[in-house]
Amino acid sequence: MSAEAADNSAVFYEQLENLEDEFEEVELELLRQQAKLTKDLYAKRAKVIAQIPSFWPLVFEQAPPDIDEYVQPTDSAVLLSSLVDLSVERFELPDGDPRSIAIKFEFSENEYFENKVLEKKFWWRRNKDGWAGLVSEPVKINWKPGKDLTSGLLDLVYQVWEDDKAGKGEDTEAKKKLKEQMESTGLDGVSFFAWFGFRGLSISEEENQAAVKEEQEKRQARKEGKPVDDDEDDDEDDDDEDEYEMEIFPTADDLAVCIAEDLWPGAIKYFLTAQELDGQSDISFESDEEMDEDEAAAQPSKKRKA
Amino acid sequence: MSAEAADNSAVFYEQLENLEDEFEEVELELLRQQAKLTKDLYAKRAKVIAQIPSFWPLVFEQAPPDIDEYVQPTDSAVLLSSLVDLSVERFELPDGDPRSIAIKFEFSENEYFENKVLEKKFWWRRNKDGWAGLVSEPVKINWKPGKDLTSGLLDLVYQVWEDDKAGKGEDTEAKKKLKEQMESTGLDGVSFFAWFGFRGLSISEEENQAAVKEEQEKRQARKEGKPVDDDEDDDEDDDDEDEYEMEIFPTADDLAVCIAEDLWPGAIKYFLTAQELDGQSDISFESDEEMDEDEAAAQPSKKRKA
Repeated sequence: MSAEAADNSAVFYEQLENLEDEFEEVELELLRQQAKLTKDLYAKRAKVIAQIPSFWPLVFEQAPPDIDEYVQPTDSAVLLSSLVDLSVERFELPDGDPRSIAIKFEFSENEYFENKVLEKKFWWRRNKDGWAGLVSEPVKINWKPGKDLTSGLLDLVYQVWEDDKAGKGEDTEAKKKLKEQMESTGLDGVSFFAWFGFRGLSISEEENQAAVKEEQEKRQARKEGKPVDDDEDDDEDDDDEDEYEMEIFPTADDLAVCIAEDLWPGAIKYFLTAQELDGQSDISFESDEEMDEDEAAAQPSKKRKA
Repeated sequence: MSAEAADNSAVFYEQLENLEDEFEEVELELLRQQAKLTKDLYAKRAKVIAQIPSFWPLVFEQAPPDIDEYVQPTDSAVLLSSLVDLSVERFELPDGDPRSIAIKFEFSENEYFENKVLEKKFWWRRNKDGWAGLVSEPVKINWKPGKDLTSGLLDLVYQVWEDDKAGKGEDTEAKKKLKEQMESTGLDGVSFFAWFGFRGLSISEEENQAAVKEEQEKRQARKEGKPVDDDEDDDEDDDDEDEYEMEIFPTADDLAVCIAEDLWPGAIKYFLTAQELDGQSDISFESDEEMDEDEAAAQPSKKRKA
């Protein structure tokens, strides 16, 4: 490639980056608009749903493959027997990032855990290396004796997180145990409830704010055609000290987005599909009483309706 | 279930349907907003892209699995060697349905077909049975001798379509041949270019307009709490005379949506990922000359970057 061609490419590259910045702004604006336009509708929907027994369990029964693949038969039984409400909130709106999401599960009394509410928050954050995405904190589940669906993994993750917050260093008991257990059993077929253990990159609020400010300045400079030092980011690719290696549900951020952008807005559609497939008429909703746990666990793998 | 509970369920069902109608209105409004907010950006992007050799081939190289799974090695070679532009338009805007999409491929001279432009349009249409979705028309590809990537399937589909338009009935030569070929070879591993043959349900413009009008009246009635005759639709489930059975690319509508909502808006991201993975620095874009067809066809299965 000639020097001239290379020069041109550098210019195109800057232009592409500028465009990506502008597209991202539009995307955020559309997310804000969406939140505004749907707010009352979701509130109305929640009121209707609250009167329909097994609405959310039936929605999960018809969940798309990207969600369903993580729901093990026992998880499915728990959700079917005791999930009473689900809600998704873009909790940093109106002023913060619309990509931050909180997902709240509400449960009735069940034989697996004491919690009535399990809420997991994902913050959209940026770090000093230029990475941006969702980070979270482990949520503790109070398992009933012998009923831990994650075989202790979630408790260990929570303990490690507490140890980290207390600055206990790398060699804690919980870390060793977690590592051992992850190495010996692997994560194949891990419970959906391990999702509550996800942390993602460790980014403090200060680091995020500094990184967002730096990024804004960089974008402004690029827009004005000033030279931008982008290489800094690339050179630090090997600097992954922030990377949290002991993730028991590494794709939890993707799953959260899928819940927020597919299951949550499409809930009525999934529910009606479940009704149809159960061969019931419009006017006979399946009630709690009609499905016990064994039945639920024995349900065949769920398919998204074409 | 008691009679009272059943009555309540009927009420909830109406409410859910009302909500779905309202959510759909919001979705359409957001699609219109999106089109408005991104129009100039896409025009700007097209200008930058036009100066970058192999932009679209590299985007396809990094296409997400939902698209990539349909691109066979030979298709990939064709795209890599001769795809010069791609564009997506919501062509019924501003007045029509924002879900109708036109996808236009532009090619340089290549050894497979004569066409410089292949454009496929998908119309969002509703039929009298209450079905709504994307329908299309087959696009003819002028294959060079011995180079038909669909082994004659696309030509047959096109001929059947012409026969249908001419009212030639069910027993045409082309129909028999198409049926035979589909039965004998199946559609596993069919070329991406078979996508251009998709028809979907046969819905005339008159039927669509009548169905849209009927649906609007139904929605209005439901909103006002008047009785709505929804059963009519359900009873006609067996009336599938409109179903076109000889589809050589049955999921073409899903693929079109995936191109329009993922590949098209994410093109810069996919291009930059391709650049990175090719281990090239920011300023040395891969040019046409650097990749020949054999290399292209030999590329390993592409993964979406995490």
